[in-house]
Formats: sequence, structure tokens, C-alpha cells
Amino acid sequence: MIDLTIKTPNETLQVKVQQGENLLHALRTAGVNIDAPCNGNGTCGKCRVKLVDGSVRQKSMFKSKENGTVLACSCAVVEPVTIYVPQESLLDVNNIRVQNNTEKYERQFYQVRDKFASTFTTESHVRKIELELDEPTLDDNISDVTRIKKHLRLQLGCSRVEINTHLLQRIPLILRENNFKVAVVYTWLDDDKIRIIEIKPPGKTAGYGVAVDVGTTSVAACLVDLETKQILGEAACANAQSKYGADVINRIIYAIKGDGLKLLKDAVVKESINPLIMELCKANKISCEEIVMFTASANTTMTQLLLGIYPDFLRKEPYIPALTDTRDLNITAADIGLCINKNAVIHLSPAVASYVGGDISAGVLPALIRESEKVSILIDLGTNGEIVLGNSDFLMTCACSAGPAFEGGEISCGMRAAPGAIEAVTIGDDYKAQLTIIGAEKPYGICGSGIIDLISELKRVGLIDARGKFRKDVTTKYVKFDQYGIGQYIVAEKEQYGLDEDIYITEVDIDNFIRAKAAVYSATCVLLSSVGMDFDDLEEVKVAGGIGNHINIKNAINIGLFPDIDPEKYTFIGNSSLIGSYLSLINKKAKEYIDETAEQMTYIELSVYPGYMDEFVSASFIPHTDLQRFPNHNKMDVPLKDVKSAI
Amino acid sequence: MIDLTIKTPNETLQVKVQQGENLLHALRTAGVNIDAPCNGNGTCGKCRVKLVDGSVRQKSMFKSKENGTVLACSCAVVEPVTIYVPQESLLDVNNIRVQNNTEKYERQFYQVRDKFASTFTTESHVRKIELELDEPTLDDNISDVTRIKKHLRLQLGCSRVEINTHLLQRIPLILRENNFKVAVVYTWLDDDKIRIIEIKPPGKTAGYGVAVDVGTTSVAACLVDLETKQILGEAACANAQSKYGADVINRIIYAIKGDGLKLLKDAVVKESINPLIMELCKANKISCEEIVMFTASANTTMTQLLLGIYPDFLRKEPYIPALTDTRDLNITAADIGLCINKNAVIHLSPAVASYVGGDISAGVLPALIRESEKVSILIDLGTNGEIVLGNSDFLMTCACSAGPAFEGGEISCGMRAAPGAIEAVTIGDDYKAQLTIIGAEKPYGICGSGIIDLISELKRVGLIDARGKFRKDVTTKYVKFDQYGIGQYIVAEKEQYGLDEDIYITEVDIDNFIRAKAAVYSATCVLLSSVGMDFDDLEEVKVAGGIGNHINIKNAINIGLFPDIDPEKYTFIGNSSLIGSYLSLINKKAKEYIDETAEQMTYIELSVYPGYMDEFVSASFIPHTDLQRFPNHNKMDVPLKDVKSAI
Repeated sequence: MIDLTIKTPNETLQVKVQQGENLLHALRTAGVNIDAPCNGNGTCGKCRVKLVDGSVRQKSMFKSKENGTVLACSCAVVEPVTIYVPQESLLDVNNIRVQNNTEKYERQFYQVRDKFASTFTTESHVRKIELELDEPTLDDNISDVTRIKKHLRLQLGCSRVEINTHLLQRIPLILRENNFKVAVVYTWLDDDKIRIIEIKPPGKTAGYGVAVDVGTTSVAACLVDLETKQILGEAACANAQSKYGADVINRIIYAIKGDGLKLLKDAVVKESINPLIMELCKANKISCEEIVMFTASANTTMTQLLLGIYPDFLRKEPYIPALTDTRDLNITAADIGLCINKNAVIHLSPAVASYVGGDISAGVLPALIRESEKVSILIDLGTNGEIVLGNSDFLMTCACSAGPAFEGGEISCGMRAAPGAIEAVTIGDDYKAQLTIIGAEKPYGICGSGIIDLISELKRVGLIDARGKFRKDVTTKYVKFDQYGIGQYIVAEKEQYGLDEDIYITEVDIDNFIRAKAAVYSATCVLLSSVGMDFDDLEEVKVAGGIGNHINIKNAINIGLFPDIDPEKYTFIGNSSLIGSYLSLINKKAKEYIDETAEQMTYIELSVYPGYMDEFVSASFIPHTDLQRFPNHNKMDVPLKDVKSAI
Repeated sequence: MIDLTIKTPNETLQVKVQQGENLLHALRTAGVNIDAPCNGNGTCGKCRVKLVDGSVRQKSMFKSKENGTVLACSCAVVEPVTIYVPQESLLDVNNIRVQNNTEKYERQFYQVRDKFASTFTTESHVRKIELELDEPTLDDNISDVTRIKKHLRLQLGCSRVEINTHLLQRIPLILRENNFKVAVVYTWLDDDKIRIIEIKPPGKTAGYGVAVDVGTTSVAACLVDLETKQILGEAACANAQSKYGADVINRIIYAIKGDGLKLLKDAVVKESINPLIMELCKANKISCEEIVMFTASANTTMTQLLLGIYPDFLRKEPYIPALTDTRDLNITAADIGLCINKNAVIHLSPAVASYVGGDISAGVLPALIRESEKVSILIDLGTNGEIVLGNSDFLMTCACSAGPAFEGGEISCGMRAAPGAIEAVTIGDDYKAQLTIIGAEKPYGICGSGIIDLISELKRVGLIDARGKFRKDVTTKYVKFDQYGIGQYIVAEKEQYGLDEDIYITEVDIDNFIRAKAAVYSATCVLLSSVGMDFDDLEEVKVAGGIGNHINIKNAINIGLFPDIDPEKYTFIGNSSLIGSYLSLINKKAKEYIDETAEQMTYIELSVYPGYMDEFVSASFIPHTDLQRFPNHNKMDVPLKDVKSAI
């Protein structure tokens, strides 16, 4: 065994590893949250560490640069060595930001909720009833549960009840501590039967619920008072599975080896979802035990990993999920490993296919596609880009692999749309970027909407060409080229904002983003053409995702992410998966609506669809190889400059 | 901390204990299965240990005898000490005896089963169906579960299925390993819905079931092939909770202190039920995973301890159980901690009241009381003696605390009715006992039926008087008196059978047994009188319990355990709780019958019933203070001797 000393900005760890052990593996085993979106393929360059003392054996193609920086995935430990893992190589897993009641909910969540409240009766899954039971005597000596059941039958009309062991264990004491006056929290199982979720002192709320969107890159959650249906707080963090791979394919490959599946399940539950729940509870001074309902929407791979289901067949033709209709699933908090009430009601949104998951089934609800005869399209900008086309008569869907760029993944200074993120950018005549930062004075990085603006502006002012390469004929102090000729643009100078490092974007970042936008644009084209439609047939476009709240639609059209149609047709609806989860948490009919939506959707498998790859290649430019498709490119109400297009 | 060295016949343990720590507590903490039926009250005298080296501080009333023997419960450790725990102070917990297919089942189990098969359609809870699924393609890309569901709907007509996460996790691999040809093991949840329990390769059995009787003193289990309904083996062992107290009251007192409840739950599950299941599986070469159904019948306290339910209100007026109708309970193998398939169907027999439990609800079925207009009585001779009186029109029930004597507990050389037990005794003119031993040449101890014979014979030949005391005017080498004048009778001489010690019975043992039989007899009287009946109204008497298979009814009447009515009216039906569990395992209607039985029984609480204590005191003689109640006492077809009665 060889001594390995690991220093990070926060701690120093001493571990012993086998001779020749892979350094990335050793770091993961030691519990270091090192970022490795390519899962050790040596392609993403994220797992950089510094050699402090001693040396490692490296694969020749990743030879150490002069400053002693190596990629952990390409090194083997062969002698005692001390390494330093810098902040930028660490995943931002524990950086949870809780936001309490903000204007955002009013706009995005309650709007849809209130619209539905007028259509649907707002029936809750979880309800509460207060009981005043007679105290038992020798003549009235029925059991505690029979006594409760007798009263429930009278007051609710249910003839059968279901109680879980965990609750039953405490019932004798709860009843007597409260002199047989208690509140029963329950849910209807069918017309005639209820499940008792909790029995508690009278006068308290029915309890709280948590709605979650489990994305490939980010996890977002909101805490809800089930009685008032108000959102008490929202929080988001990185999906801790990211350290095992940035996209679903890399995660699946990791899952099927050794105990990979368990590690992935644990990562998302114990390092992402549970910490979010705990932070939300802490901020609202409630106990996790009081969470009596949990809804989650996720893509199909995330759902299978959350449940610990062998996922390999999701990525192998003919791409078959284990389960789509989640109503078939009998699931408890313990099955997932959630830190909430053991008897909580758990609902997962249903999937359509291997690459169209519960996030989309849930997302169609706040997108209101089914509520109108107008043909509209929902574009969910996630790591897995998912698109739904339809109206009250039909629903078509497809998915494409966009990668994590929309959520700031695989972008040098990328981050989620959270406080400190640059969410909007304009570039002035002096090529200097003007920034809009979410809830802060000082920028930490750039989120998806900021990157869209940035690329659009870089193209508009002529700093990059249609391939996304920096033009060497335009000189400014904001653009630099490295020894290999790779350009980068300084978005925020460290001096101006008092940062340790500049915030910048490189050609590699832009290339990643172009691939993401090309995947989404070409998928949109193919979905439309599959039903013989054109962009002009679209009456509404709903854009969803964790890209940021202030996406500039004109810029998104300018870079060729969205089709060049009237910008007035676009609406940004936020994290539609989370909003769907929220509605499903507070309203029984909303859950049924989401189940129906999944059943009604027709899925198109793009990977075998003729013409998709050609569309993708043509779209891998700014905005597109076929400029006729973007007649308004750089002609919209942003100041134009006389620049030469590379095409 | 003080060094404590513990020697047992099997091992030597070195532990460190606090100054002044109670020795019994120290032994339990060290994992020694020391017998302490009175739970450390200093009254049962079972926790004897020998001081080998060093000394202990003793409570004055339990001062060490000359041979260095002390009661662990009365000692405090104050200096380094070495003690020896002899075999007789250890609980026989791990002594599991598996019996494969014996004539016993033919008689006791199959008889009732076959009788019911003619009345009921023999519907199983757990069934199997073989499916030949189409392999998925790009055009037929429904999920694995949807595919299974589609076929089940066609073949079974169920429109809904329920799947647990544990099974779902493996479904993708199971289907593909078997080329989509699989057997689905399932159970109907309602008319329209099934639960999928297991999916396995085709051609195998539906699986196995385990039926259990959880008694206060003993636990018995049988392993059943759910397809053929044959019993593959039976096994029994002591209830490992016995070390925390011999009867339910002492266990409840232990449960409500510290982590007592958890220790009691763990004891019965991990040290009794799971080892029985594992031994049965091993003997039949199957895996515990193949156990897909579990039924258990137990008294109410045992049921609450099995489920980890706070039990204190069972022993406090007005004696209220947490739950009687077990249909309200949603329970999994994990809730109990069973080492069987995680999706197994679990049924617990329903209780009637705090002291009439599922053992009796289940036991009424094989007793066939409800099947006739004849008034009959079921007497279940357990630690908790339970009695049911009735016919097809009515069912009355009551319970009494008999203690563990019927199962050999609190008897010096007592044991369960298992191989090596003396099950029948006659005493010859020379006062020497003639023994019948279960399945062995060499006796290990005496079981309940043997003790009945022994006391009856000792009384008949005039060695004891009506109070159960040895008569000093009769001299024989088989009767000895100790320094305090306490008599004992040598049942089996060590020389004759090659034993380490004689097998004997003492006045204290006889006294324990008299209290047990008096409790049962007086409860029987009170139950009859509560409905204005007399012994002569009884047309049938069914005797049940782990007392042994060859109970001599005439001797049982002779000692005043049973009423003095025509011995032809008596039938011994064995462990009726276990047989009821078995029937409930293999037949849906039997389970419903047991549920109905519990609903139909009217319970009489003896502890507050006027006259019960007087009846008990009068019955605490052999056979009774009122000899007119036993006109045939010692006049039955056993050889009579000219003996003087003490009364």
C-alpha cells in the first residue's frame, strides 16, 4: 500500500492505495467530490490536480504540463505522493442555495396552479381530520386501531384503512399522550380505503411536501405546506452523480460496473436530494419527519438510477426502460432512501420512453400544450433535451443529447442559474461585456442564458465567426489566444470585480454549446417534419429548463438554438419539470393529468430517424449552414455592426 | 472497568464491566443466553452461575451456597472475577430440531386441510403464471413492466399490477437472461389488481411458504411447497425472548425500559424465527429468497413485540391492544426483519383482545368448533392459557396466565415436546418410573404430557399428597429430601441411561405445574358459567398446545387439569395455532375464516371477573378441594393402590 496525501482548499486527507491504483479512482474512494464529467475517458480535462510532492505514472498522451498539473484519470499512483485538488476541479455539490418565498413562484408556479384550480377541483392527496375518540374502558375495550377506524368510518365513510408498521408502533403512546384527541393525516387509496400516514397532536398542519426535479446536471426542490399549498422555499444543487459522468450514457456505463449502480443511487439521494430537503427544512424550522409527501420528475435514466434499477438497456437498441407507468410501482421513502416520514406518499412522474421521462410528462402540464387547439411546442433545455409538439388533440415527443452546457456544464466558467451567475450579457463597442448578475454584485460564473447572450453578442460584434472560432483579425484586450491558437474571451476581469481569476469563455466552451444548440434545433426540425409541419405552423413555443429565468429569445434565435419565428410566440416557463412536480404534489387531478399525458404522447426515436444526423451537422454553425432558415439573423432590435460572416 | 471472565460449556469470554454492574445484565450484554424467566426478580432460581475465581457482592437473601453457586441476578461485580455458566442455566435457543415429512402432519395437518378442501375451493394466495413475451423492437418499444402487464391482462384479466422496487430493480436482467420467457409469481390484491411477487425462470415452483406459531415459550415453524401444499419440514425452538422473562408480563416490563422493545423484537426474529427458517431451508436445499409467503399466529403480546409496538397498555387496565384486525396492517418482511423474499406476502392472524391472540383465532379453525351445532371447548395449553367455548352459533373466549410449565418451562428438568423428551410415564409398584421417550433411547428432560403423567402417577401411588408435597411416610430410593425438607423424585437415574445428572421433579416444579393447571381449570369453569352452562353441556373438548402429542387425558383429569367428563369427548389436536397458520398459508378462504373467527368471538376479561380468584384457589390442589367435581379421580382404568389422600 502506498501513502497518498490529498489536499483540497478545505481539507487534507491521508489515505493508503494499492500500487498502480488509478488516481481518479483513489480520489473518489477517498470521498473527494472531484469533477469528471467524461468519467475518466481523458476527454473533458476537468479532473486536473497539482503534484505537490512525489510523482505519478502518466499515460503518455496526457503528459504533465510544466506547472505540474495532471489529469487524475490518466495517472497511476506508484510512489508516495502529495497532490492538490484545486477548487475548479471540485464539484459544487454541497453548494445549496435556499430561496424563501420569492416573486418567482408567484409568476411561474402559482399562475399555472391557479389556472388549474379553476378547471380542476383542488383535491389534495394528503388530508387531515381531527378525531375526538372515547377513552377505552373494560366495557369498551376495542383495539386502538379499531377505535380510530370506527371514527374514520363515521366521519369519512371509508370502510377500510391501511396502516404501516412504523406508525403502528407509536400509536398506543400517541393516543394516550393526547388523551385520545388526535389529528389523523391520511390519503385515499381507493373509493373505500384510506392509508393513515401520520397521527399527531390536534391543531397542527397536515404536514409538508417536497417536489423535486432530478436533472442530469442539477437537482431542484421546493418545500410546500400541504394545507395552504404555498411554497415555503426552493433550493437547488448539482446532481452529485456528475462526478461519475456528465451525461446519462456515461452514468449508465458507470452503473453497470461493480457497485456503480449503488454509488450513483447514493450520490443523488444522499448527496443531492436529502441535503436539499434538510436545508429546506432547516430554513423553515420543520423536521424532516413532517414531510409526508414527495413527488419527483426526472428523465428516465435518472428515475431508474434513483430506484436502483439496472439501466443498461436504456442505452442499447431498442432502448427499453424498465418501467414507464409509475402507477404500477409500490414505493416507500425507504426504497429510495429519503430522509422523510417513512409513511410519506411518494409519486414519481411517468415516463414515455428511454429518453423522454417524467420531467417531460410533468412539464407538459405547466406548458399548457393540451389546453388549447393551437399547435405549440415545448422545448426543455436540459442535458437531455426533450421536445414535445402538440395541442389538445395530439402530442409528439422526441429527445436529443445536448450535454450539460445549458446548465453551465462543460463550460470553463459555467454554473447553474443561481445567485452569482451572469444571466445576461451585452457587448459594447469597446468589446467589453456588460453583465446582469443574479442576486449579487460579484459574478461567480455564467449560466445558460448568459452563454446564449454571450455567443450571440460575440457573433454580432464580429469577435467569433459562424464556426464559433475567435477571429484573429479583430484585436481587443478581451480576446486572448493560447500557445495552440485556442481563443478565449474575458467576460469579467478579475480586477474589476475583485475575483481570484477572470471569468472567460473559450472556443472549446463555444463548441460545446454549439453542439448542444444544434442537437435541440435539429430535433425540433425533425419532430415537426415527422408530422408534415413547418416552423410557421407553430403558434406558441414554450421554453423550459434550468438555463436561467431571463433567456433572451432573440439571442437564442440569433445563435440558431430556436427557429427564426416571431419572438412574440416564445414564452419562457422556467423549470417545467419542477412546476409539474409541485402541481402533482398539491393536486390529485394534476397527478392524473400527468399520467394521462405520458399515455397520450407518441415517441419518435431520433437515433434511428432518417435525416436527423444531417440536420444536426447543418445546425452546428452560428446560426446554421442554411442562412435562409434565419432570415432575421442579427437583424433584430439589437444594434448591428458591419461584420463579415465567415460563411 | 473490571475484568469479568465468563466460561460456558462452549466458550470463554473476556469482558470489561462497570464497578458494581449487575452480573445478569453483564452476561446478557456479553451475549450469553442465560435463562432468567423471572427477569432478575430473584424468584425463579434459573440464572445460577458458579464462582470459579474471585468473589461478587451478593444481596443478603441470596447468599452463596457452600459450592460457590450464586444467582447472577442478585450479584454485583466488584472485583475481577471468573464465573462458570453451566448448561442448565443456558437457554436452549439454538437447539433447533428439523423434522422432515412425518406421520404427524398426515394426522394433524392434512386431515383438517382435506376436510376444508371439500368445503372451500382451495384458492391459493400465491400463484404462478408462465409468460412468453415478445422481444422488444424499435417498433414495439414499450417498457418491460408494460409488456408484462399487457400479457397478464390478457391471461389473467387484471387491469392493474403492483410491483415493489426490490423486484423492479432486477426485472430488466431477469427478462433478458430468460429470453423473455419467464414465470410470474403473484397474488391478487383485489378483483382487478395483482401484486407481482417474483419473476423467475420458467418451469420452477411458485415458491415456498413458512407458517409459524410464535408462542411465549416456544416457536414452531413449518416449510410448505406452495404449489403442492405439502409440508416439507417442521422445526421448533425456544422463544429467545425467554431470557428476558418467562411470561408476557415480565417481557412487557422489560420492553418498556431503554431499548428493551428492540431487544425483544430482535430476540424472537433474529434468534428464533430466522434460524428456524434458515434450518428448514437448509434441510430442504432451498434459498430463503424462495420463501414468498409467511403466516404467523401468536398471542397479542407476542404479535406486538414481533412488530415492535409499544406494549405497556396490554398489561394495564383496561388492557387495550394496539391492533386486533391485522387486515388493516400493511406489512413487509423488512418491517419484521425476516430473512425471506422482500416481496413476500405476510399475514398475521388477528387477535380478539389483549390476552386472546392470533394463536386462538387461528386455532379455532383446526378445532372445527364453528363447523358443528355441538357445543365444544378448545383448551390451548400455552404459557398464556386460552379457552374458546362455542359452536356454529356463538364463540366465547377467555385467557389465563398459566406460565411456561406446560411447555417444560420453570420445571427443573422440563423441556419442549421434542426428541429426547419423556412424553409419557407410568410408575410401577417399586415406585420406579417407566418412560416413553420421543424419538430417542436416552431422555433429556420431561415435556408437558410427561409431567401430567408423572404428577398423576405420583399421586396415584401415594408418593405425593393433594397439595403436591412428597409424603415422608413412604420410603423409596427414588424420593429424596434436601436440607430444607424439599422433596424430589428421580424420574430417570443417570446410571441407567448414561446421563451426567439424574432427571428429577421437585415439589417446587409440582407446585408450578399445579398453578398452571389450576389457572386453566378455573378459567374453563368461569367461561362455562358465564353462559350458564355446566361441564355436562360440553359435547367435545379439543386440547391444543405444545404439551406433547400423547397427552393422557385420564391423567390430565386425574390431576384436575381438565373437567371430569367422559374421556371419549376429548381430542388432542396438537399445535392448533401452527396448523391454523399452515391452513392460512395455503388457502385464501382459511385466512378469511380466521379473520371472521376473531370478529365473532366474545371476550371475557377474567382478571376482573367475579369469582375467578376463588375458583383458582380451590383448584390449586390435586385434583381440587371439592372432590365431588372429580368423582372418577383415580378410579379410572389405571391400577389403583391403597393410598391415603391428604385431604
